[in-house]
Amino acid sequence: MFQSQHILSIATMGMGDIDFILREAQYIDKQPNYYHDAMHREVNSGKKTQINLFIENSTRTARSFELAGKKLGLDVIDLAPNASSFSKGETLLDTALTLQAMNPSILVLRHPESGAAHFLSQKLHDCAVINGGDGTHEHPSQALLDLATIYKFKNPDVRGLNIAICGDIAHSRVARSNIELLRQKGANLRLIAPKTLMPRLPNYPNVQIFTDMNKGLAGADVIMMLRLQLERMSNNFIPSLAEYYQYYGLTQQRLKIADSEVKVMHPGPMNRGVEIESAVADSLENSLILQQVEMGVKVRMAIIYALLSRKSMFEYMPK
Amino acid sequence: MFQSQHILSIATMGMGDIDFILREAQYIDKQPNYYHDAMHREVNSGKKTQINLFIENSTRTARSFELAGKKLGLDVIDLAPNASSFSKGETLLDTALTLQAMNPSILVLRHPESGAAHFLSQKLHDCAVINGGDGTHEHPSQALLDLATIYKFKNPDVRGLNIAICGDIAHSRVARSNIELLRQKGANLRLIAPKTLMPRLPNYPNVQIFTDMNKGLAGADVIMMLRLQLERMSNNFIPSLAEYYQYYGLTQQRLKIADSEVKVMHPGPMNRGVEIESAVADSLENSLILQQVEMGVKVRMAIIYALLSRKSMFEYMPK
Amino acid sequence: MFQSQHILSIATMGMGDIDFILREAQYIDKQPNYYHDAMHREVNSGKKTQINLFIENSTRTARSFELAGKKLGLDVIDLAPNASSFSKGETLLDTALTLQAMNPSILVLRHPESGAAHFLSQKLHDCAVINGGDGTHEHPSQALLDLATIYKFKNPDVRGLNIAICGDIAHSRVARSNIELLRQKGANLRLIAPKTLMPRLPNYPNVQIFTDMNKGLAGADVIMMLRLQLERMSNNFIPSLAEYYQYYGLTQQRLKIADSEVKVMHPGPMNRGVEIESAVADSLENSLILQQVEMGVKVRMAIIYALLSRKSMFEYMPK
Repeated sequence: MFQSQHILSIATMGMGDIDFILREAQYIDKQPNYYHDAMHREVNSGKKTQINLFIENSTRTARSFELAGKKLGLDVIDLAPNASSFSKGETLLDTALTLQAMNPSILVLRHPESGAAHFLSQKLHDCAVINGGDGTHEHPSQALLDLATIYKFKNPDVRGLNIAICGDIAHSRVARSNIELLRQKGANLRLIAPKTLMPRLPNYPNVQIFTDMNKGLAGADVIMMLRLQLERMSNNFIPSLAEYYQYYGLTQQRLKIADSEVKVMHPGPMNRGVEIESAVADSLENSLILQQVEMGVKVRMAIIYALLSRKSMFEYMPK
Repeated sequence: MFQSQHILSIATMGMGDIDFILREAQYIDKQPNYYHDAMHREVNSGKKTQINLFIENSTRTARSFELAGKKLGLDVIDLAPNASSFSKGETLLDTALTLQAMNPSILVLRHPESGAAHFLSQKLHDCAVINGGDGTHEHPSQALLDLATIYKFKNPDVRGLNIAICGDIAHSRVARSNIELLRQKGANLRLIAPKTLMPRLPNYPNVQIFTDMNKGLAGADVIMMLRLQLERMSNNFIPSLAEYYQYYGLTQQRLKIADSEVKVMHPGPMNRGVEIESAVADSLENSLILQQVEMGVKVRMAIIYALLSRKSMFEYMPK
Repeated sequence: MFQSQHILSIATMGMGDIDFILREAQYIDKQPNYYHDAMHREVNSGKKTQINLFIENSTRTARSFELAGKKLGLDVIDLAPNASSFSKGETLLDTALTLQAMNPSILVLRHPESGAAHFLSQKLHDCAVINGGDGTHEHPSQALLDLATIYKFKNPDVRGLNIAICGDIAHSRVARSNIELLRQKGANLRLIAPKTLMPRLPNYPNVQIFTDMNKGLAGADVIMMLRLQLERMSNNFIPSLAEYYQYYGLTQQRLKIADSEVKVMHPGPMNRGVEIESAVADSLENSLILQQVEMGVKVRMAIIYALLSRKSMFEYMPK
């Protein structure tokens, strides 16, 4: 049975629940229509509501959660940042309590401050909070969908797999969630970043640090590129975009350093010509970027369903 | 049977219909799932559309109506102010007629001009108009949900109950609707405001005027606080926020003047530290503020259902 | 059977499919509830998704497509311009591929660049693209709804009908689609515009060019007015609004030049007092402007249904 009351971070989630979600997502991927009907029956005894509260702008993640909720038959209420007088002149606490009073079953929160989802989860009752990205802390559903994508398109076991994470690791909640998840799963992690964008991490046995991308990519089975937040430029973390591309851009040339069957991932949206060359992004052979988007909806369906029903859809399988 | 073709104001609604809505909301509150199914059967023979036209920014009321409509199975189409080329370069008349042509069954209008909802209701046919707040005129669904909340958490009869309304009464459509409703229902009303924010009212027998909050609160059973529109500051209605808080802020200290079982209400969003102290707003013992939000969805479901079916959900009750 | 995989332009659509849509829309118009149920059964075996990607601001067309999709039971996901980080810092190609990965069945695109819908239709698979207006190229659903409106309220055959199109023809995708459709259908077209706003066209036998509105309107059975894009003013296409109104505004006075039973159309939103006099716009006798809006939802339902099922709803008719 699924244990988590909320999905706040990979670090606090427990491997049993992580594997539960990954297994369910795999099943949805194989049997989308059947699962859809099963979920409909289960979830909608008494119509349920999902509130998307995205204080930070986001299209990709917000729409992915919206689609996942709607596919499960939930009423999805969207609170976009500019529409949200909840967030203006009101504390997050008031916002949380006001939303609680509308009795949602699911609240997906994206917020610029680390810990915001955790804070809300303590204030709300009868409502599961999903962290859709909080500050520089975590973005757990992204890490889960990334791993589900690796399982499907690379290998259903990441133990011993060489996975490079490259770019602005210090400020990336995607990186933080992925490092935690892949580390626990036994992958060999290589973190590649300029010194100014590399966080200080505990001394994990299977995590190596590189400032030279050419060294970090050697023999990599999977490369996870991160989006360069262009506002870092003005903060002098990076000398120039051209220089960044030269040293840390993933080009076709540089891809040859990695394993010959390497897979490339990116959480999007991409800055083509900044952190990734177009030919790499669009490579049918190497790129899994669109597969990530597709898997994203399925993983989020699995998350929402698990939080609402606490059961596996396998129970509905025809014998 | 429910009589109103539109919900434009408390003043024009008729006590029969007011009691109808309050009774239905009470039933939804007790039997949410059963009512939901009954309504679905009734309302959706031929899928119905609800258009939310919010020319003024609003999250709380707009989302409450959206949720109410969706719970009843309607298609809810949202016209947010910035998305609305209907409202730019077009007259309200063109907007109204264009919307009419899309054949909605329900139109919820919020508009900065008093009388806008009434105007639209005269131009549209086969469509019920709900006033979601028009200028400084009325906000009838707010008054209905406030009364439903008092019925549930304070007393199912307000005759003789001492109810204080405090704050910027002159510019508040919430106050105007509440004064009209509570006055008709026989409550003892105390209106508390600085002279610059007190409207001129007819000489109602059960309405008293106070400029001194300490006097107005004495023995109050219910206190309805109003949101201070901060733009009033620049118009010199108020000397300063600090001074306003000192004379008209509802503090724990001041709450002791009222009845020992007093209940506190606020339509939200609150300005903590301006019109209300946080400890009062969050008091489990006194505050009904979140209960108002919760009741809001139910009262709006009752309103929409009544306008569409003209019948009571009691007809669907299992014997 | 319906042939088109996408709806990109009238010019490429084929008369068989055009007539298919017009016939279906007519049927929806007569039997809205019955059609609704039939479509629901057909379309929703496995819930389908419609994505509205409106890079240019639009309320009327976007909401019309939203309503059409929802009435057919689709999940409609709205990507408004300001919510769309898809469109910022990402190429249209990335946007297209990202959307594709969310597996929509229908993508409605409005885009400021001509050819954008065609471009997307080549990149996506298993997804029908509907051009909701691309640059100054085409707006095919508008032409189809205009013709469906003429069929219903004027004449079910436009051969020999005198139809005037008046205004900024050069920059109007609505005009371009209508000229193509009505020309093919054998109407006598009169294009009326100042020289600066008249495009260069092939030498069509049944299309006449007028710079003098009084001559162009003589004996007209239908007048299609175009919206004047006010930004043309600053580009010196027009000397002044007052002068434009004097020479090209449709006034009651000028309407007398046309046939006594003339019908007036406008795609909206109108500039009253610029291209059209209010008395003409609101005339119960002459104006079909609101009928166009109403027909718009039905024509778009017909388009979406045809793209999804490739069949006629007649197959569901009770014998």
